Amino acid sequence: MPGAAVLHRTSDFDHNRTVITFAGRRDAVLEAAVRAAAAAVTLIDLNHHRGVHPRLGALDVLPFVPLGTTAMEECIEIAHVAGERIWNELGVPIYFYEAAAVSSDRIRLENVRRGQFEGLREAVLADTTKQPDIGGPPLHPSAGAAIVGARKILIAFNVNLNTTDLSVARAIAKRIRASAGGFPALKALGVPLPSRGLVQVAMNFTDFERTPVHVVYAEIARLAAAQGVEIAGAELIGLMPRRALEMAVRDLLTVSDFGQRSVLENCITDAIGGSLAR
Amino acid sequence: MPGAAVLHRTSDFDHNRTVITFAGRRDAVLEAAVRAAAAAVTLIDLNHHRGVHPRLGALDVLPFVPLGTTAMEECIEIAHVAGERIWNELGVPIYFYEAAAVSSDRIRLENVRRGQFEGLREAVLADTTKQPDIGGPPLHPSAGAAIVGARKILIAFNVNLNTTDLSVARAIAKRIRASAGGFPALKALGVPLPSRGLVQVAMNFTDFERTPVHVVYAEIARLAAAQGVEIAGAELIGLMPRRALEMAVRDLLTVSDFGQRSVLENCITDAIGGSLAR
Repeated sequence: MPGAAVLHRTSDFDHNRTVITFAGRRDAVLEAAVRAAAAAVTLIDLNHHRGVHPRLGALDVLPFVPLGTTAMEECIEIAHVAGERIWNELGVPIYFYEAAAVSSDRIRLENVRRGQFEGLREAVLADTTKQPDIGGPPLHPSAGAAIVGARKILIAFNVNLNTTDLSVARAIAKRIRASAGGFPALKALGVPLPSRGLVQVAMNFTDFERTPVHVVYAEIARLAAAQGVEIAGAELIGLMPRRALEMAVRDLLTVSDFGQRSVLENCITDAIGGSLAR
Repeated sequence: MPGAAVLHRTSDFDHNRTVITFAGRRDAVLEAAVRAAAAAVTLIDLNHHRGVHPRLGALDVLPFVPLGTTAMEECIEIAHVAGERIWNELGVPIYFYEAAAVSSDRIRLENVRRGQFEGLREAVLADTTKQPDIGGPPLHPSAGAAIVGARKILIAFNVNLNTTDLSVARAIAKRIRASAGGFPALKALGVPLPSRGLVQVAMNFTDFERTPVHVVYAEIARLAAAQGVEIAGAELIGLMPRRALEMAVRDLLTVSDFGQRSVLENCITDAIGGSLAR
């Protein structure tokens, strides 16, 4: 739609999940988000949904991310307006998470999603602490609930292992994730990829400058090798910020002062915005 | 100056050399190049110059590189005009190289520079095949000659080795460079870095998509380790194109479909030029 553009889309068969990244002006992004929710409600029935990725709703998570000069506060506002509209227009109850959370036990996505669609649609009827922030109970009969939030850029990066033994992926995920005392700002889950005969360490890097992708990749390679398993390849879900590439090149090619100003196109873009524009 | 901007500058004590990268509109870049030549002629006297990097002139090499929609033909024209002006205005004779070469034996920079300032200032007086393409003989008494050309983007990338044994760097350079049957499109030289107690494999990647930096880096690490030597760090001279980072991340993190469209800022820039601009 005018003012908003789809930047990227990733789909996976085993996850049975699609991640769509779009950006643009505030009002256009808000409108696009509500329309995306409407499409998901029309197309996806969670009563018949199977897939290795956890989910609570047809539109499972809707995070707004500040880009350019936009402040996080603005994304929190948009998230709250989007949540109101999705409930009012589509009848899908809303949980707010991360910076848009309205209660502290709902900041972390995994806490909100615990129980998933199947568990939570029962729980909300009995347990008042489980009730959505807007709308319901009950959850929407086929679309569940939407988890709407505001957060910094996150990198979703999955490493596939050349084995069908799920316990290998699970052990590695448990070893590296923040919640078990591993790398800070890292979420990790071991999941099977039955269609490919592999298992996967599926990860979210919530602060990639603190815990870089390439550092965790090397650690997974080391932990897998210790069990006689090789990495079969890795997958980026959505997009990677430029800074993560620069950090990887800096560390892996040991160029200590490598950064934004080491990349030709960055310098040209800066010059066009600066000296060359005068 | 208006219409041209300095993007980057790298200087090295042992090389005793500065690489300046500037970009802009055609006429502004031409004017900036002639002024840079004038400054080099004023400031640098090759009769008293010491350094580990080969050189023929105070302004040693002046390559014009096509960016954006500029064609190589245009850079060849600019190179020829710049050469005429540097001879006419500064009295420095010119050799043309790479795409701007006017004879086939002067395409390769190392052929043109063979003998360097000290050798060539004698040779041009005796050997007619050594005479500059414009001006002279003789060479300029303190500034030698300038080697002016047009070429594609090149990556200058040096790997430092944790030893003072120059033969290690020389043996590795000889093993990897194209001229000795190593990697295609790779020039390499072993040089000492006495101020730092290290030796260096100094390289030019003339086609980094064919021979990527990270591949050669890994091979140098392997060859050095075989001699019990470690990499002490690496240095980028000038700038690295974005594509080289994307290739490094693709290969080192084994994300097979990683490319330009995997990077958030690239997608945003494309969208602003496309859908978001409408």
